[in-house]
Amino acid sequence: MIRTHTAGSLRKEHAGEQVTLAGWVARRRDHGGVVFIDLRDASGSAQVVFREEDDAHGLRAEYCVKVVGEVRVRPAGNENPDLPTGEIEVVASEVEVLSESAPLPFPIEGNAGVSEEARLKYRYLDIRRQQVAQAMRVRSKATYLANEVLNEHGFVYVETPTLTRSTPEGARDFLVPVRLQPGNWYALPQSPQLFKQLLQVAGLERYYQLAKCYRDEDLRADRQPEFTQIDLEMSFVDQEDVIAVGEALIGRIWKEILGYEIPAPLPRMTYADAMARYGSDKPDLRFGQELVEMTEFFAETTFRVFQAPYVGAVVMPGGASQTRKELDGWQEWAKSRGARGLAYVLVGEDGTLGGPVAKNLSETETAGLAAKAGAEPGDAIFFAAGAAAASRDLLGAARLEIGRRCGLIDESQWSFLWVVDAPMFEPVLDDAGTQIGWTAVHHPFTGPKPEWADTFQDSPGEALAYAYDMVCNGMEIGGGSIRIHRAEMQQRVFDVLGISKEEAESKFGFLLEAFKYGPPPHGGIAYGWDRICMLLAGGDSIRDVIAFPKTASGFDPLTGAPTPITGEQRKEAGVDAQPKETGPKDAEQKDAAAKPAKA
Amino acid sequence: MIRTHTAGSLRKEHAGEQVTLAGWVARRRDHGGVVFIDLRDASGSAQVVFREEDDAHGLRAEYCVKVVGEVRVRPAGNENPDLPTGEIEVVASEVEVLSESAPLPFPIEGNAGVSEEARLKYRYLDIRRQQVAQAMRVRSKATYLANEVLNEHGFVYVETPTLTRSTPEGARDFLVPVRLQPGNWYALPQSPQLFKQLLQVAGLERYYQLAKCYRDEDLRADRQPEFTQIDLEMSFVDQEDVIAVGEALIGRIWKEILGYEIPAPLPRMTYADAMARYGSDKPDLRFGQELVEMTEFFAETTFRVFQAPYVGAVVMPGGASQTRKELDGWQEWAKSRGARGLAYVLVGEDGTLGGPVAKNLSETETAGLAAKAGAEPGDAIFFAAGAAAASRDLLGAARLEIGRRCGLIDESQWSFLWVVDAPMFEPVLDDAGTQIGWTAVHHPFTGPKPEWADTFQDSPGEALAYAYDMVCNGMEIGGGSIRIHRAEMQQRVFDVLGISKEEAESKFGFLLEAFKYGPPPHGGIAYGWDRICMLLAGGDSIRDVIAFPKTASGFDPLTGAPTPITGEQRKEAGVDAQPKETGPKDAEQKDAAAKPAKA
Repeated sequence: MIRTHTAGSLRKEHAGEQVTLAGWVARRRDHGGVVFIDLRDASGSAQVVFREEDDAHGLRAEYCVKVVGEVRVRPAGNENPDLPTGEIEVVASEVEVLSESAPLPFPIEGNAGVSEEARLKYRYLDIRRQQVAQAMRVRSKATYLANEVLNEHGFVYVETPTLTRSTPEGARDFLVPVRLQPGNWYALPQSPQLFKQLLQVAGLERYYQLAKCYRDEDLRADRQPEFTQIDLEMSFVDQEDVIAVGEALIGRIWKEILGYEIPAPLPRMTYADAMARYGSDKPDLRFGQELVEMTEFFAETTFRVFQAPYVGAVVMPGGASQTRKELDGWQEWAKSRGARGLAYVLVGEDGTLGGPVAKNLSETETAGLAAKAGAEPGDAIFFAAGAAAASRDLLGAARLEIGRRCGLIDESQWSFLWVVDAPMFEPVLDDAGTQIGWTAVHHPFTGPKPEWADTFQDSPGEALAYAYDMVCNGMEIGGGSIRIHRAEMQQRVFDVLGISKEEAESKFGFLLEAFKYGPPPHGGIAYGWDRICMLLAGGDSIRDVIAFPKTASGFDPLTGAPTPITGEQRKEAGVDAQPKETGPKDAEQKDAAAKPAKA
Repeated sequence: MIRTHTAGSLRKEHAGEQVTLAGWVARRRDHGGVVFIDLRDASGSAQVVFREEDDAHGLRAEYCVKVVGEVRVRPAGNENPDLPTGEIEVVASEVEVLSESAPLPFPIEGNAGVSEEARLKYRYLDIRRQQVAQAMRVRSKATYLANEVLNEHGFVYVETPTLTRSTPEGARDFLVPVRLQPGNWYALPQSPQLFKQLLQVAGLERYYQLAKCYRDEDLRADRQPEFTQIDLEMSFVDQEDVIAVGEALIGRIWKEILGYEIPAPLPRMTYADAMARYGSDKPDLRFGQELVEMTEFFAETTFRVFQAPYVGAVVMPGGASQTRKELDGWQEWAKSRGARGLAYVLVGEDGTLGGPVAKNLSETETAGLAAKAGAEPGDAIFFAAGAAAASRDLLGAARLEIGRRCGLIDESQWSFLWVVDAPMFEPVLDDAGTQIGWTAVHHPFTGPKPEWADTFQDSPGEALAYAYDMVCNGMEIGGGSIRIHRAEMQQRVFDVLGISKEEAESKFGFLLEAFKYGPPPHGGIAYGWDRICMLLAGGDSIRDVIAFPKTASGFDPLTGAPTPITGEQRKEAGVDAQPKETGPKDAEQKDAAAKPAKA
């Protein structure tokens, strides 16, 4: 090592010792012949004193230097209690510039605002900033803890392929031309779903992986084309077992990194409850303002807007004092979400109701409204009426907006819960709104809850999936299910989904083939690692916890990727080759057609 | 959990307990009304007794079953001392078939030979076989230990991007079209080399990662298009520090998994020594038969073949008794390696020399040859003469072949060493053999040894790199170097390599840019994780320790990947799009061009 000590580790007890430090020039202060430099390294920083200005001459911000000197206790009154090394300083006797620094595109020290593009382009400087480096360290620690917990629970770490076959999940696959099999392409996996199920058929029983996944999605604010999951799968389990491992995993991480004890077991809420009370399948429980169903209340109403299959309300505390402009703003907000508007009633300080809706209400409605909705004098009540799903969705979003605008969310709080009992299927509608089929809410391998095992096909709209999502502070951080392992049940699911034998065969034939050979009951979950690390690091975006993130359009300002390729690369990679009818693939497959052996 | 106990955990002390097991039917033996079944799960297996044939009726190999029964001590004389559960059996009272199995393509139990293609196609059955499952578990444990050791040494786990920019390393990049940036392509990384160096500029000081790497190489026996490295990089270090971490890492793994204490510190050998004594930069030290340089000995020879800049020999013990056919076989072997043949002398039991070369030797040469070469009566001596590098290469290969044919290699032994002081550069020759330039032996960021720091450009052929490879049993399992961090030194390397400023800029401009901002001295190493796990698992191929490997041509017999893509996929992915002259990329880059700020 070039150094004998790290800067951040120096304390009073080192006084009198000769030390060699190495790091970066963080701050420099010149005081008449004496120069003070804060020398920063990964451990923290220490004050270095140069007695002659000459010695420190030419040391500029972010020069990488080696300093030899003696540790001494700072003169009384010069201590810095905010700094772990604040009681000492190092009196330099030698300094060597290991490398110089050009003028910086932005300052490393301090909290100056810097554009995200500049931060990403000079990410190697951005990471020198304490908060950013800390986020990287938090992620590393969380990853280590995850390994520790899952190792303790008997999980086997298995790396699944990332050059694989196109899989039938929601988003588009990234594709890779294969030079040695011209005309054929690999796909990058959207998740290791099929492989982790195969590993259960293989009898490993407990699999996990820090898995890189790829989804070629359209521009979305906080998405990355590559992202990471802590992916796990277990055999011979039911929902309780997967949930118990998840609570152990998340519990250990929050405890070790944040010193926060997550209450165990975590609360659970059914999907139906979450939708009814919070208008969301990932409710943020850090504040109240639950949705109130008013359908019954308005059953006899003469107000046409409220003559609907569902009427619901959410209360904005103090919302009655909003200006006209603010109230109009809510209408714009609702329209930007595809709604026609957001009906509201203002509850005056004296209890009288105001706003355009109020005059349409009957006397009984007017008299009972505030109490029914849970509104106090001075509050606003927002309404949505229409189809239940769309109305709850709007009210759920309004609730979150109210939480933000009214400062109702205690940012220091953690709200974890499991959302369970999601529906297996949801209707597929044509443009006219007529149902033309069913689609899987999770994926087609998700099993029904045990009580629906035999009957789900008879009432697809009511059948519940054996699925569970972990939600934290209104974000889904994990999602999983108990899978189907019996061929006849899988066939019934395909029948509901209208997936033909041919389609099933071509999309996931190898999984169905594997399920012929004694597959165990199994289930698992995948945790969104970028999101979890973002929560742990206190970041606003998953980009805060990704070392080299891309912009929303998939551009990397640092390396300039992606780039055009040359004609030679294109030709060599076989981008334009036609697949052969019979290639090496078929030749290779012959061997595989070994005769079944009776064992 | 469906079970109360794992099968492999049952012991005498469980006798009398009611247990529920779940696993697979491994073996079945029918004995007049009583049926014995070995029930296998991930923990091992236990014997289950069905008292009535009816109960076990229909249980076939690899059915997945749940069994309820009572543990009892086996009747005296029926114990199986080879099995951890051999003292007990479970008397079944209930059995439930969780899933059936079709007839198997190959037996799971026993050691029947199965074609590799069948194994890969039905990998989920192959992994049920004990040895294969064990290899997966060994890899998992090794990965966990690596995390543990590097965590203890203060390394930060950082995930680097896998959708990135084409990098200038040896092999071809896999390419990925980018739908959101039509006409532009990502490349999959051949290694995280540039990113890990950027993380040093970023001040993280100690980085590591279980890194997936991609190389689009031509068909080679034991290569995979994707492979895994334990990749690490450290700041403010020299070679000793990286070597110390490597010895701690490998030492812990070998100790914990194999119970083998690697002698520390590992022996080191210079590259020059390794080439001279073993004809290889990754010598297998598990046996002797070192190369003997005979150039001096033959300085005055009249035998034209030995009038060469280098003459060397290697001894084959007992080789004088080889048949004519065997000796001809060596000639074929040499020719298949591109040599003209392999000269040899046979030392008779009485010390007289035989073989076609012998008659060309002078009396002095004949008298001294055996002693000089270290041959005993009955041995054969093989020779290579010509350019030193090619001759040593041939003799090194002959030495390994001798080791194998003569059974000289003790397979139970481990031979670890570091090969250090490789040359920085090697000549680039044109087809006529004339030197037309220099190429980097490692990569262009590898630094010179300190004593060559100022002068390497004056004698590129002699300059030594600050590089180190870890070798085990004749395989390179890790390779690394201390990197260049000073711009002027990097420029001198580019000058030797004939890399122009423009070329350097276009290939790794972002790294050179980063090096303007106070880069620390740094170095690192990457361990070939597939190979290391193969050694630990006692496998013959890295495919033994990869859950879902591909064939040499990159085909996956299980999923059928790669596959042709549809016209729609092709169009959507933008495979045929032309890159825009100014795209969103440029728009985004504008932000990044923030003015340099003085800090």
